[in-house]
Amino acid sequence: MAEMWNVEKEMKKVTNVRLSGDRSAVIIIDQTKLPGREEYLELRTAEEIYDAILRLKVRGAPAIGICAAYGIAVLAGKIQTEDYGEFLMQFRNYKTYLESSRPTAVNLSWALNRMEQTVIKNSALKVEKIKEALFDESYSIQREDVMMCRAISEHGLTLIKDGAGILTHCNAGPLATSGYGTALGPLFLGKERGMNFRVFADETRPLLQGARLTAYELYKGGIDVTLICDNMAGVVMKNGWIDACFVGCDRIAANGDTANKIGTSTVAVLAKHYGIPFYVLGPTSTIDMNCPSGRDIPIELRPEEEIRSKFYKEQMTPAEIPCYNPAFDITDHELISGIVTEHGIAKAPYEESLKKLFL
Amino acid sequence: MAEMWNVEKEMKKVTNVRLSGDRSAVIIIDQTKLPGREEYLELRTAEEIYDAILRLKVRGAPAIGICAAYGIAVLAGKIQTEDYGEFLMQFRNYKTYLESSRPTAVNLSWALNRMEQTVIKNSALKVEKIKEALFDESYSIQREDVMMCRAISEHGLTLIKDGAGILTHCNAGPLATSGYGTALGPLFLGKERGMNFRVFADETRPLLQGARLTAYELYKGGIDVTLICDNMAGVVMKNGWIDACFVGCDRIAANGDTANKIGTSTVAVLAKHYGIPFYVLGPTSTIDMNCPSGRDIPIELRPEEEIRSKFYKEQMTPAEIPCYNPAFDITDHELISGIVTEHGIAKAPYEESLKKLFL
Repeated sequence: MAEMWNVEKEMKKVTNVRLSGDRSAVIIIDQTKLPGREEYLELRTAEEIYDAILRLKVRGAPAIGICAAYGIAVLAGKIQTEDYGEFLMQFRNYKTYLESSRPTAVNLSWALNRMEQTVIKNSALKVEKIKEALFDESYSIQREDVMMCRAISEHGLTLIKDGAGILTHCNAGPLATSGYGTALGPLFLGKERGMNFRVFADETRPLLQGARLTAYELYKGGIDVTLICDNMAGVVMKNGWIDACFVGCDRIAANGDTANKIGTSTVAVLAKHYGIPFYVLGPTSTIDMNCPSGRDIPIELRPEEEIRSKFYKEQMTPAEIPCYNPAFDITDHELISGIVTEHGIAKAPYEESLKKLFL
Repeated sequence: MAEMWNVEKEMKKVTNVRLSGDRSAVIIIDQTKLPGREEYLELRTAEEIYDAILRLKVRGAPAIGICAAYGIAVLAGKIQTEDYGEFLMQFRNYKTYLESSRPTAVNLSWALNRMEQTVIKNSALKVEKIKEALFDESYSIQREDVMMCRAISEHGLTLIKDGAGILTHCNAGPLATSGYGTALGPLFLGKERGMNFRVFADETRPLLQGARLTAYELYKGGIDVTLICDNMAGVVMKNGWIDACFVGCDRIAANGDTANKIGTSTVAVLAKHYGIPFYVLGPTSTIDMNCPSGRDIPIELRPEEEIRSKFYKEQMTPAEIPCYNPAFDITDHELISGIVTEHGIAKAPYEESLKKLFL
């Protein structure tokens, strides 16, 4: 029942990213091992946290932000000084380092900036107290994410009917966030309320987050899911099986242009061609009002081996052949039917509607 | 030099499908083992031929037709009878069996029908002579394919300039045909004439013909090729890197709707969105005037395991998750800028222009 939902209860259920009991480590589920193994990692050093983000052991824009927040709280907790100036300097070194792990998702720097503000706001306190405030702030960031996911799910659910066919790309479910997820949130919430959906999950090459994570999460949640290759999205749309596309986001520019997993813009072009609404779902922390348009969003290029050989029994193409491997693409705002946030659904013109979300 | 080109010389170079010296077997390169190993198979029985087509050891619409023609000539050569009626009956049993191996490509039944006509046309001859005529006919089919590929390449080359960026999907090169290939033909021909192209090859999930075959063939041919995942085609178009899309075809309906490897229609939708011409290249034997539109083309559904686990070190998604795995899709004729055949380039309206190709 909706009335019974409680954020603290929900927080206890979150297992993908959390703080260890003694606050000496961030504990994450290693997403690169799913669905074969559910393996948890304890990240204790800056290098371990950086590496976990870089190698996508933790991934999904909100989950990256939460991991970085807990991570810098853990690292700050271990700084050996009583001097505020020295503490701030060391804190900022950690911040700069962690921020450089992945460039596209804005939640990473958003969360780290919030943590830095916590240090600055509390500069009058003793260093020990600042460390406490950082742990509190990181907990708040995750708690807010749980609430945001819930609110996004409620808003998203107004867009679809019982029995709807939904296409999703990459993974924007519980593993990528805390709680219900963003793009998958309305599906889990609807399921709780007795609704049924038919979901088609793009496998999402090269790293197969759709096959490994989305199909796995939906299946575990009892939701009807069919896995397809990315190049089959057009056919399921043409077959009349899709009523709406739901995707997550890594950064939204002020004009509504959206960076999300590579291939998202193709789904949007196909949806427009076949007359299907295309929705982006994400917290307002993903909106970067300092970024005028998609052209200003940096796009991470990842190793060519992810295309040539990773996951495969054999090398799939001669090792000498160059590959182009952008991790994200930009979906033009004109292709987006609505941006679903915790504060409501923004529609075109986005320049205005996105601003209003922050009022 | 173009003047030096000679079909008999070209025939000697063809190694992907050919008749054994003693005419007791069809020899094919096993395309499922490429690019790791260049392994040749001798197909002697109807079951071996059927299996090679079904499992894509030989693939590409023209190559399938050639393999079936040689195959049925080999099988007919071994029929133990002098009686024409008995011979025709056994021949037809083989034909029906081989035809059922894959439903979408029309070249398979086209080639087998030609072979059957050869039997019928020569019914007055002794069975031994009919067997000879069948070997001759199968050789002619391959020889014509070599000439057709050359002619298609010439016509295709008129559509692009030196330095052009080309996107291709799946594999329609020498391995899929005899000689230059269809979609890749203009690139190989242009290369011979000193031109350079920048080719982007979609890897083409689930069976990765783009990574395993196209990138490999182009690389071996000294052509600049970059491998991308299927979901990256939109980005390279948006980046302004693509001047034209070249794809092959498995069956073209009378109205121009074209069946080709799954994902082709997505490339066409993207090309239209980004204002890039999209060309289908294939011999007129791929045009099925008995098929009014794409809706009438049967689409082969292939095993779900091709998506879930084939090629992978591990199962990529829980084994219980259903997959939808159509091998082909239909590209609407409205998305096609031209159909390049050995007789010239057909343009819209296709109902008329395709008919004219057969005059």
